[in-house]
Amino acid sequence: MNDFISCEYQLTCDASEVDAQARDLALEQTVEVPEALITDPAIRDGVVGRVEGIDRDAFGKGAHRVKVGYHAWLANGQIPQLLNLLFGNISIKGNIRLTAVTLPKPMLNRFRGPRFGLEGVRALLGVYGRPLLATAIKPRGLNNAGLAKIAGDFVRGGGDIVKDDHNLADDDYAAFCKRVLACHEAAVAANEATGRNGQYFPSLMAPSTELERYAEYLIKIGIKGVLVSPALIGYDAVRHLSETYPLVYMAHPAFSGSYYANRAHGIAPEVLLGTLFRLMGCDMSVFPNYGGRFGLTREECVGIQSALQCPMGNHAPGWPAPAGGMSFERLPSMAEAYGVDSVFLVGGALLSHGDDLAASTREYLDVINRDFSEDLRAPMREWTSSCEILSQSTLNLLHHLRITGDLEWEGRPATVYKADESLPFAGVKRVELVGKAGEASDFELRYFELEPGGYTSLERHVHSHTVIGVRGEGMVVRNNEKAALKVNEIAYIGPLEPHQLRNESAAPFGFYCIVDRERDRPMEV
Amino acid sequence: MNDFISCEYQLTCDASEVDAQARDLALEQTVEVPEALITDPAIRDGVVGRVEGIDRDAFGKGAHRVKVGYHAWLANGQIPQLLNLLFGNISIKGNIRLTAVTLPKPMLNRFRGPRFGLEGVRALLGVYGRPLLATAIKPRGLNNAGLAKIAGDFVRGGGDIVKDDHNLADDDYAAFCKRVLACHEAAVAANEATGRNGQYFPSLMAPSTELERYAEYLIKIGIKGVLVSPALIGYDAVRHLSETYPLVYMAHPAFSGSYYANRAHGIAPEVLLGTLFRLMGCDMSVFPNYGGRFGLTREECVGIQSALQCPMGNHAPGWPAPAGGMSFERLPSMAEAYGVDSVFLVGGALLSHGDDLAASTREYLDVINRDFSEDLRAPMREWTSSCEILSQSTLNLLHHLRITGDLEWEGRPATVYKADESLPFAGVKRVELVGKAGEASDFELRYFELEPGGYTSLERHVHSHTVIGVRGEGMVVRNNEKAALKVNEIAYIGPLEPHQLRNESAAPFGFYCIVDRERDRPMEV
Repeated sequence: MNDFISCEYQLTCDASEVDAQARDLALEQTVEVPEALITDPAIRDGVVGRVEGIDRDAFGKGAHRVKVGYHAWLANGQIPQLLNLLFGNISIKGNIRLTAVTLPKPMLNRFRGPRFGLEGVRALLGVYGRPLLATAIKPRGLNNAGLAKIAGDFVRGGGDIVKDDHNLADDDYAAFCKRVLACHEAAVAANEATGRNGQYFPSLMAPSTELERYAEYLIKIGIKGVLVSPALIGYDAVRHLSETYPLVYMAHPAFSGSYYANRAHGIAPEVLLGTLFRLMGCDMSVFPNYGGRFGLTREECVGIQSALQCPMGNHAPGWPAPAGGMSFERLPSMAEAYGVDSVFLVGGALLSHGDDLAASTREYLDVINRDFSEDLRAPMREWTSSCEILSQSTLNLLHHLRITGDLEWEGRPATVYKADESLPFAGVKRVELVGKAGEASDFELRYFELEPGGYTSLERHVHSHTVIGVRGEGMVVRNNEKAALKVNEIAYIGPLEPHQLRNESAAPFGFYCIVDRERDRPMEV
Repeated sequence: MNDFISCEYQLTCDASEVDAQARDLALEQTVEVPEALITDPAIRDGVVGRVEGIDRDAFGKGAHRVKVGYHAWLANGQIPQLLNLLFGNISIKGNIRLTAVTLPKPMLNRFRGPRFGLEGVRALLGVYGRPLLATAIKPRGLNNAGLAKIAGDFVRGGGDIVKDDHNLADDDYAAFCKRVLACHEAAVAANEATGRNGQYFPSLMAPSTELERYAEYLIKIGIKGVLVSPALIGYDAVRHLSETYPLVYMAHPAFSGSYYANRAHGIAPEVLLGTLFRLMGCDMSVFPNYGGRFGLTREECVGIQSALQCPMGNHAPGWPAPAGGMSFERLPSMAEAYGVDSVFLVGGALLSHGDDLAASTREYLDVINRDFSEDLRAPMREWTSSCEILSQSTLNLLHHLRITGDLEWEGRPATVYKADESLPFAGVKRVELVGKAGEASDFELRYFELEPGGYTSLERHVHSHTVIGVRGEGMVVRNNEKAALKVNEIAYIGPLEPHQLRNESAAPFGFYCIVDRERDRPMEV
């Protein structure tokens, strides 16, 4: 591959040093040894970064633009490696700022980017023609009813997205479930009153091993989006969540400010909160609005918007979500700066606007609507569901499987035992009972029946089996030992144990078999 | 809990503004709303951060020391929340630097900290009485044989730890396994020649979902330590790896420099690379040595050492690993700065010292030994094993659950239905069949039996139930609808559906119930 990642850095140094410093940068980020040690031409030409151009004083006196090209393969198509390549060791130097990154198309194609982007979120909400209005639930310390009231009132007032303050967090999964459910139910109830589809986005911040469990819960209860802080929960964790769990990802900049608080150093906010967060799959990026209590300039803020929405491979465009300093009076100028495809995230200003949050929300929307032609359409309520992550084709979820005959169930016809006939078997009937029809479970329940003389494949696999005798009497062969299995006796087959079920009787032998939903394929013994 | 996290910040501003800015900081990091909105005394006293002291010009003219106390519960004992609390939103301001953190003991106790620390690593290596000598395998672009040769030569020369350059990375698991095995085997072979126990530490950098697979592989092949870059792979991911996989964790500062490259801003390196990396479980912390090609001062470097080794709850002391500028000539002054319990990480200087890496390593060790009394002892080769990561308590795994009576199973006595009696129920017997006794499954199989008139709690939860009728006939109440459940009929209860099982007949009603192993607690309807 001859693909290159093109970077632009701002180097602040004496003009006489910029050539040497640019070369050092390219070495530091790739081979991390002095140039004299690079004697192998394959490493010199195929690994070391290339200084492709130097534009002296491009960013002002003493601030030079340096273009560096990196061999794209060095990033291995992985987020941590990419960040390391762009700004790993040189993050420790005070005078270097990454100001632009262009990734080659084959590399962009390895990432999904925003799943929903502009179009998906508009379809979800049914809101067209104007920027979205969002707020934050705070302060921390309110009880669940108090938090839920904010969610409900904002949605009742016609607000589009109410997110957790990123400081809201919970001791454990149970507390998270309870708090989030309360807020979500308040938003759902408010939607029933308005006929709209305003959304509550909880903050997904948890120990690294718990993130997926939390995300699964959110999907199960019908939540459509989350707030994530990539600099806190991990950049690649966000990429993985976004690829795996169909939610709208709203990125929060917490803990990321050190990369752009100093203009001579770091990573420009356009790159980090724009290009890179978009690459990680964030549909929206919250950033401190210019003129608020943080110090970003208007140019930087509009640059983030542009990075989120400019052409970037096949990646969907995302939403800039300026926050802070979004007061009532400033909304019209915000509308001018960010345009229609933006999220106005108004926190403290909205909460302190008046006593009635629903009324305040309506007032804010009125101001927005003065400058835009709001167009409300029917929202796509079934836009995504837990089914989507199970990627089922035809679902047939039934809550009650009635017996219609001799161990036959309504809606659950018998199927072939195995489509793959590489391992021998005979006289086996299979019925998928639970797990394949969209049920939310980590396991599948199947019924098998062996004719007299029938047998399943002799096989092994890493996943375990739990087998319950249902009719007749069969034999369980496990590790070359054979034992009879009577009705309601239970056999457990552990990981990699060779096993087979056999019917050596003259009557049918039926059994339930429970397996993990995520499991490996059987292997020959 | 009245525990507080004590922080010291450096605030750079006009002395007349420091009071207001300190107060803003304490609000920003906790409630993120203006003070006027905090009317609830419980929030004012129990959530908002406390400004505990201001020492004007303590860090020089215009740089003030501000002490802030945070209620420890706000961090929920979790790394991402803690980082957010210490420096989340204020990272976006340019004039604030976190210079010290003291965590209360109950909070420290929730973290394991370094597993091996000073003592464990010395026992592993059998090296006492002097600093350790380490190097890095580079440059990237060498083939596996070339990389392995560096590992082998360094260990043959008596070096203690040879780590991957943090830029070394692989396309996938298979390539990682191959490369790492080659280097590890070279180190093992060299140990056979020397009788010593020098170690190869690979770089553990991978997609978030692959980290554990990589770690498991390393333990399987006998690797004893790894290089991790917390700012790239995730702070809490490092904490989790360290708690779960018994390896020596050597932290690398890649991508973390933006927090401390600017002295008016960020997080002091003593805090980030010292206190916080130690809290995350890092046994060693690599940092750019003063006088090298990065700009840390001697005071900062010695401060990192002190943060790694000072008393900190029950956490083991860790190893400072100064790197860069560790030339031959400077070793004696390094020894003076860092003392005996340090790792001298010499990369480029050692690789370019001469053509024979083993001989160069010996030379470097000789210089170190001039200032110290080396004491070599027998290393602990069986210092840790993969068994340690499987910690089951008392298991009663049975492969065949025989029926011993009237739906009673050998080895599976009936237990109480619920220890928690907050939700009403009556006449329920419960038998844990599969999942609680060490079986490898993502689900649990239980048998319940209701006496005539018995009923389970009316409840709801996010996890689903799959219920199979086994004896008699009972009633399934689901979303206020009631349906009879006969033997071998199956009921599926979806997420959050209120449900109850009832026996309205005159005979016992028995059913199997299958649930996910990882599940939430039932809630009232």
